[in-house]
Amino acid sequence: MQKGIGNHAVGDTFEGFMLIKEAKKGTASNGKPFLTLYFVDSSGEIDAKLWDASKEDEEIFTEEKVVKLVGDIHEFRGKAQMRIKSIRPAQVTDGVRVSDFLEKSPVDKDILQEQMMEAIFEMKNPNIQRIVRAFIKKYNEDLFIYPAASRNHHAYVSGLAHHIVSMLKIGRQLCDIYPELNKDLLYAGIILHDIGKLHELSGVVSTSYTLEGKLLGHISLMVTEIKEVADELKIEGEEVIILQHLVLSHHGKAEWGSAKPPLVREAEILHFIDVIDAKMNMLNRALEKTNPGEFTERLFALDQRSFYKPLFEE
Amino acid sequence: MQKGIGNHAVGDTFEGFMLIKEAKKGTASNGKPFLTLYFVDSSGEIDAKLWDASKEDEEIFTEEKVVKLVGDIHEFRGKAQMRIKSIRPAQVTDGVRVSDFLEKSPVDKDILQEQMMEAIFEMKNPNIQRIVRAFIKKYNEDLFIYPAASRNHHAYVSGLAHHIVSMLKIGRQLCDIYPELNKDLLYAGIILHDIGKLHELSGVVSTSYTLEGKLLGHISLMVTEIKEVADELKIEGEEVIILQHLVLSHHGKAEWGSAKPPLVREAEILHFIDVIDAKMNMLNRALEKTNPGEFTERLFALDQRSFYKPLFEE
Amino acid sequence: MQKGIGNHAVGDTFEGFMLIKEAKKGTASNGKPFLTLYFVDSSGEIDAKLWDASKEDEEIFTEEKVVKLVGDIHEFRGKAQMRIKSIRPAQVTDGVRVSDFLEKSPVDKDILQEQMMEAIFEMKNPNIQRIVRAFIKKYNEDLFIYPAASRNHHAYVSGLAHHIVSMLKIGRQLCDIYPELNKDLLYAGIILHDIGKLHELSGVVSTSYTLEGKLLGHISLMVTEIKEVADELKIEGEEVIILQHLVLSHHGKAEWGSAKPPLVREAEILHFIDVIDAKMNMLNRALEKTNPGEFTERLFALDQRSFYKPLFEE
Amino acid sequence: MQKGIGNHAVGDTFEGFMLIKEAKKGTASNGKPFLTLYFVDSSGEIDAKLWDASKEDEEIFTEEKVVKLVGDIHEFRGKAQMRIKSIRPAQVTDGVRVSDFLEKSPVDKDILQEQMMEAIFEMKNPNIQRIVRAFIKKYNEDLFIYPAASRNHHAYVSGLAHHIVSMLKIGRQLCDIYPELNKDLLYAGIILHDIGKLHELSGVVSTSYTLEGKLLGHISLMVTEIKEVADELKIEGEEVIILQHLVLSHHGKAEWGSAKPPLVREAEILHFIDVIDAKMNMLNRALEKTNPGEFTERLFALDQRSFYKPLFEE
Amino acid sequence: MQKGIGNHAVGDTFEGFMLIKEAKKGTASNGKPFLTLYFVDSSGEIDAKLWDASKEDEEIFTEEKVVKLVGDIHEFRGKAQMRIKSIRPAQVTDGVRVSDFLEKSPVDKDILQEQMMEAIFEMKNPNIQRIVRAFIKKYNEDLFIYPAASRNHHAYVSGLAHHIVSMLKIGRQLCDIYPELNKDLLYAGIILHDIGKLHELSGVVSTSYTLEGKLLGHISLMVTEIKEVADELKIEGEEVIILQHLVLSHHGKAEWGSAKPPLVREAEILHFIDVIDAKMNMLNRALEKTNPGEFTERLFALDQRSFYKPLFEE
Amino acid sequence: MQKGIGNHAVGDTFEGFMLIKEAKKGTASNGKPFLTLYFVDSSGEIDAKLWDASKEDEEIFTEEKVVKLVGDIHEFRGKAQMRIKSIRPAQVTDGVRVSDFLEKSPVDKDILQEQMMEAIFEMKNPNIQRIVRAFIKKYNEDLFIYPAASRNHHAYVSGLAHHIVSMLKIGRQLCDIYPELNKDLLYAGIILHDIGKLHELSGVVSTSYTLEGKLLGHISLMVTEIKEVADELKIEGEEVIILQHLVLSHHGKAEWGSAKPPLVREAEILHFIDVIDAKMNMLNRALEKTNPGEFTERLFALDQRSFYKPLFEE
Repeated sequence: MQKGIGNHAVGDTFEGFMLIKEAKKGTASNGKPFLTLYFVDSSGEIDAKLWDASKEDEEIFTEEKVVKLVGDIHEFRGKAQMRIKSIRPAQVTDGVRVSDFLEKSPVDKDILQEQMMEAIFEMKNPNIQRIVRAFIKKYNEDLFIYPAASRNHHAYVSGLAHHIVSMLKIGRQLCDIYPELNKDLLYAGIILHDIGKLHELSGVVSTSYTLEGKLLGHISLMVTEIKEVADELKIEGEEVIILQHLVLSHHGKAEWGSAKPPLVREAEILHFIDVIDAKMNMLNRALEKTNPGEFTERLFALDQRSFYKPLFEE
Repeated sequence: MQKGIGNHAVGDTFEGFMLIKEAKKGTASNGKPFLTLYFVDSSGEIDAKLWDASKEDEEIFTEEKVVKLVGDIHEFRGKAQMRIKSIRPAQVTDGVRVSDFLEKSPVDKDILQEQMMEAIFEMKNPNIQRIVRAFIKKYNEDLFIYPAASRNHHAYVSGLAHHIVSMLKIGRQLCDIYPELNKDLLYAGIILHDIGKLHELSGVVSTSYTLEGKLLGHISLMVTEIKEVADELKIEGEEVIILQHLVLSHHGKAEWGSAKPPLVREAEILHFIDVIDAKMNMLNRALEKTNPGEFTERLFALDQRSFYKPLFEE
Repeated sequence: MQKGIGNHAVGDTFEGFMLIKEAKKGTASNGKPFLTLYFVDSSGEIDAKLWDASKEDEEIFTEEKVVKLVGDIHEFRGKAQMRIKSIRPAQVTDGVRVSDFLEKSPVDKDILQEQMMEAIFEMKNPNIQRIVRAFIKKYNEDLFIYPAASRNHHAYVSGLAHHIVSMLKIGRQLCDIYPELNKDLLYAGIILHDIGKLHELSGVVSTSYTLEGKLLGHISLMVTEIKEVADELKIEGEEVIILQHLVLSHHGKAEWGSAKPPLVREAEILHFIDVIDAKMNMLNRALEKTNPGEFTERLFALDQRSFYKPLFEE
Repeated sequence: MQKGIGNHAVGDTFEGFMLIKEAKKGTASNGKPFLTLYFVDSSGEIDAKLWDASKEDEEIFTEEKVVKLVGDIHEFRGKAQMRIKSIRPAQVTDGVRVSDFLEKSPVDKDILQEQMMEAIFEMKNPNIQRIVRAFIKKYNEDLFIYPAASRNHHAYVSGLAHHIVSMLKIGRQLCDIYPELNKDLLYAGIILHDIGKLHELSGVVSTSYTLEGKLLGHISLMVTEIKEVADELKIEGEEVIILQHLVLSHHGKAEWGSAKPPLVREAEILHFIDVIDAKMNMLNRALEKTNPGEFTERLFALDQRSFYKPLFEE
Repeated sequence: MQKGIGNHAVGDTFEGFMLIKEAKKGTASNGKPFLTLYFVDSSGEIDAKLWDASKEDEEIFTEEKVVKLVGDIHEFRGKAQMRIKSIRPAQVTDGVRVSDFLEKSPVDKDILQEQMMEAIFEMKNPNIQRIVRAFIKKYNEDLFIYPAASRNHHAYVSGLAHHIVSMLKIGRQLCDIYPELNKDLLYAGIILHDIGKLHELSGVVSTSYTLEGKLLGHISLMVTEIKEVADELKIEGEEVIILQHLVLSHHGKAEWGSAKPPLVREAEILHFIDVIDAKMNMLNRALEKTNPGEFTERLFALDQRSFYKPLFEE
Repeated sequence: MQKGIGNHAVGDTFEGFMLIKEAKKGTASNGKPFLTLYFVDSSGEIDAKLWDASKEDEEIFTEEKVVKLVGDIHEFRGKAQMRIKSIRPAQVTDGVRVSDFLEKSPVDKDILQEQMMEAIFEMKNPNIQRIVRAFIKKYNEDLFIYPAASRNHHAYVSGLAHHIVSMLKIGRQLCDIYPELNKDLLYAGIILHDIGKLHELSGVVSTSYTLEGKLLGHISLMVTEIKEVADELKIEGEEVIILQHLVLSHHGKAEWGSAKPPLVREAEILHFIDVIDAKMNMLNRALEKTNPGEFTERLFALDQRSFYKPLFEE
């Protein structure tokens, strides 16, 4: 298999396939048009200028296209950049797919699906269980391939399901340690809390925010949808309100986007499980790239902190 | 007509009808049960102890009952209190109604309804107009008698409709001054923004918060309901999302309960019209009771400020 | 008439007159001096380098000079830039004036003046009216040509008067809707609130902050000046203190520059009228440049928000 | 066994033993001295006045004394109060001990000790393990009887050990779910994080803050002591610094008392485990006293929130 | 000389003269009027009820009157209270003056005046010196008897001058240590910074806030007055602006009431000298009343902190 | 003596010795390695590229090396930069030392040492005095050459001692003005408060933060060390706790890094003396470089303020 871009250094020549994540038009100082192309594969990313780009080039080399590329990697203002020597769109006979170039969840989506189903199977309250099942059925496709965010944590294919399943594991253990917790509520809250992201995010490649996402947000979208699904199932009563509340309050505080703070025990715990799993995901990714005895880069979503990897971590 | 409690002073004897707003049981230091009764009429309120209350008394003298009362007004710990001499439930023949004892909007509810309908009549976008009409029809009863809040501003019968109609007046003028404003959106936002309070608040007498109100809040309830009403009317498209956004963002900031800040021009203006009308209502009520040259009491919802009434206000 | 710079694109050649807004000296990597010139006309702005600038060039091409310019527009680091082919100072015979190159209020200054006088004419309290008249007389010149700010809202010729007159329109309507408002006070507050900017800002072209502006601010300068004007008119009493208070408190909160928050009804309302007119001015300008279905650029003075222009805004 | 005070109501007569938690002297309006006594047993607390208290009474009825008491329970300003009929100090022959009257951890201290030892046994890094063992040995007595706080969470006998052991359980599970976590560090952080409270708090009965506690705080005291213990064991190197950092940062933010925020992965997780266990303890205690369909009282350490107990919690 | 109220305990009988600081009317539960009188002398304060107060009593026993009083001191709700046995207005022949009953600066006002004059004498910049002299002359009377505040720091007769003179001492020393400081500016800033309090505070007895004080504040009043005084002296130029700036910015931050933060070196230092002297005054007063080994009461203006007095402070 | 870099302008040729403060490797767009060298001397700093750097160059031209340099100064992106013509390491025969190239305290380190000893000599409490002496002895070397910070205030050789001695001068004067202050405590607090920086900072040249510095901070390190030193001296009692508290609280607030706010009078004053000396140091350095009538650059550690230097400062 081809050596990914992440395994090349400044000075190397690259030859292989990459996915165009974004393509931007510009005008050079000589007045001629050019394209800035942002390439990714599952090992990393790099950008390049395509000078003197023709109208045809602009139509061919667009977002989500896979290309065959030959180029030299040099440094420009402190960053690696590709100098393109040849570029052409991938062809059917090349046998490459968009999904080959995207980073994926470390756990396979079939396993994630299975583990989520197990959790639903454990539920006892029929109203809660039926509502959760209805969502799984409704979003069976997207739920298992969407990322959990456009950047920050779990920003990869099946990231949302990976996040949910990790949270379910923590939830199961906390229910053992604190038997007072209502497992049905906690599991349901975990599974539903971020499903609104299927509407908030544009998709799996070049993930951006939709209009609904920007104007209403995934929390509000989901609070509405729980009501709709319950109505369709003709389920009424406190379970519906409390599931809505779990989703509404899972960011923990008004200033973090939850108009109501958690006011039910499981809502409070749901918030912290979400926080822990998101932080572990970001910390592990950053520390993986860090040598013992060194600090990570500043992590935006962790208040710009740099974390230290102790020397005694072999 | 009877002289209201608000026109009596410490030392006076009161005789007349009042409404029980709240009734609380207690045990006296002699071990006997008593009731603390909170009476209101449209001119003010006072509380009293009913000593040695029998089981029967506890059943008769409950919230929302009108009673015939004779008592002396004395001072207890710096506050006026009624010493009950006789008390009995009002009878059909007394010809008194609960609504006689509640404070009402200074503008009659029929006029409010008419003015709201006029605004709807001016709308040009059929989707927006149909959604608003559907809400008016759905809540025709409650919308014109509910208060806008349990305390603070417009906390009286028909207060919600009074608030909406005052805001519509400001909205109309701003649309004249700034023709860039979309009148349909602004009117719709004004009419819908607080309708969720019909679910958030328990009712007109002894208004408290419902479970949905506490766990989800009137904003979230209304964002959901706009979607439901639009679905029923088979209306789709940006109008629905933007009406939801107007409601969602009308508190202006995350920390004030709007998970998204206003991101549409009319949403920004809706927020300020709401603020102005609420503040004018509170300021006018407080300054009415204040003499020129003096300060009002501290106003909780105005950051605990005391406002000054200039001497040259005759 | 000449096509403004705002109607040219990268690749075009520009020929025409522009105003120098700012001129900065630099030393090129070859050791020779050059000038960076920032040009404006009423349609937009652009900058250029004048290489190998002589001492004479430095004296001729200075702030607030109009020049005749020929050049090519190219892109440099993602921004349009002029490459100067020829440049000379405008001559008397060119028939161009500095004011031709500055953006102006959409409403003519004579109309603004007339509308302000009408408001003053409506006032009934002679003390308030005389103080306001004295200010109009004192600053008759500057008051009708100054901008309201160096950037953000109403940052154009006659912007201050335009801001005041729009606010007076809102004020008039609110006095109709809420007859409890003291129109004299509200009008006076509106007219006086920002007059301190005539001292705080350096002027109409290349507006910057004066020393008094930086060390004392327009609010403090105006609070002092109201007292001085009142003393000259031999007016004493609460009206003076309350006018000072209206100006002092019009930013609404200590952290926004008002050492005292509004403590008089009209002061509270003045603050919100000011906010609404400033925001409408910024929103309208940003949305005018935005297509339906798109978001504006981030607006600094609106908490860095991007606003959406709905698709159904034709 | 005697029925505790928590099982008595207003109107009842109480006869039995109680512990004096606090005794305060006062002077009655007749000029005579009296004592206010605050009694506790493991089921609840109540206070009483001892009128006309003699010098002898003041010496006998002091903090941490057990007394035999007969009295009537009546209501005073909305709170239950004891009216003392007879009172005498407990005697040896009564066979009662102070510890009988204090609330205890639901898990026995021997079991807590055993579970803590198990965790230490699992550690692999000898430096970390030796430091932790040294602390257990040093504080073997107090560590297993101290509360974790004077109020709020785990404020009962053996509360500190109970808190640690619950946290160890969460820690063990998180190490399973996230194998990247260093179990030695996390366990050590959990065991050590609050040991400084043995110096910060005065003891088990009538727990108050010591001078060191007030001026330095348990975090600072423990950071110092880890260094001292390591020096005694002649252990040097990063393990010591990182253990100190875990303790120093476990409150998570400067404004919550951690001069440095967590900068090591296990420090970040330690903070959240601490938060979850403290919150669960407070939530469970409050919800236990609440009926389904009702809200708890406002919980001070949970931002004054009232939590709802759903109706479907049987 | 009479033993002050501060030297009496509950149970004692008091006989002597006191000043009425405040008198409030009330109605007893028997419907009869009574007066609540707040007495002070230079050693402390106490309040009392004057039951069955006649119209004449209400006219005689008013604020700022000295009375001859006999009464018993008892405890009421945990606070000492006087039970009046006899009360009469002081007569000329009693030879007592209001000022005998007020707390005074520990340094005599003549000495304070002398020390202030010395500082002015050291000034070299004639403009600054003349402005400061003009203020001293204008307020010669009040400046040396006013308190610096109605409570908090230097709240006693001549407190303002005492505050200024202590600050001048610090200022002199800092000018020695940091010769870069402009002594004229610093001294002038110190002397002028709080003179606005002569308008903000009502007077020396029962000090309250004036209307100007509440609506404009001492800072704003003084910024205006510096300009007026400079105009009268025909002084123009930067000295005036900078003196205004020193006063305007001396609270240090917008949220503390300074619309502009210090932007001149001496302004920055002035702020800290003010803070230090105010804090030392409050700390010394609180610690004087505290035994070694104990904490002071919570100090409101020091963020509610209690300060510790070490045991080794003999 | 050689003219420093600070006395050269763009266009000049420089010839002389400089110290390498930092050396960074890069790869040029032609694929060849280069070095970016940051040079300093006591008059200023400049950077340069060393193109086509050999392996040998990389080993020779490293941090803390002095070099003989010839080069031209040109401008690159608005900043002066050196174009190297020749460079070689300094040789023994050149007679230059690293310390010649570093900025030093304006007061000689011997004088600083003497003044610190004088203060210690004045102390009366033997416990406090012995602890302070022990620290001076322990760090005799570093204490008098370390800077007080890596940037901001007193960031030069002997900066820490200079800071301490200036603070002692203020402390002495405040003890005169407020005799209630405990001079022993205040002096000890001043001398000890920042000694933890000897562990927090890496050294005198190219000062950076150590691991302990980053994870524990100088405050925490010093609180621990005071206890250790006291233990070694067998000193126990409140003096130790209070010295620890002085250090712990000297940043004044939790959010500024002091887990406990000052709770002892001298701690409160220590904080303000520290603030004043740090601010004076930064202000004086910035204003020195500023002409009368102009503003300084924005000062990061002074909340990004620019300070004005009055015209009448000659």
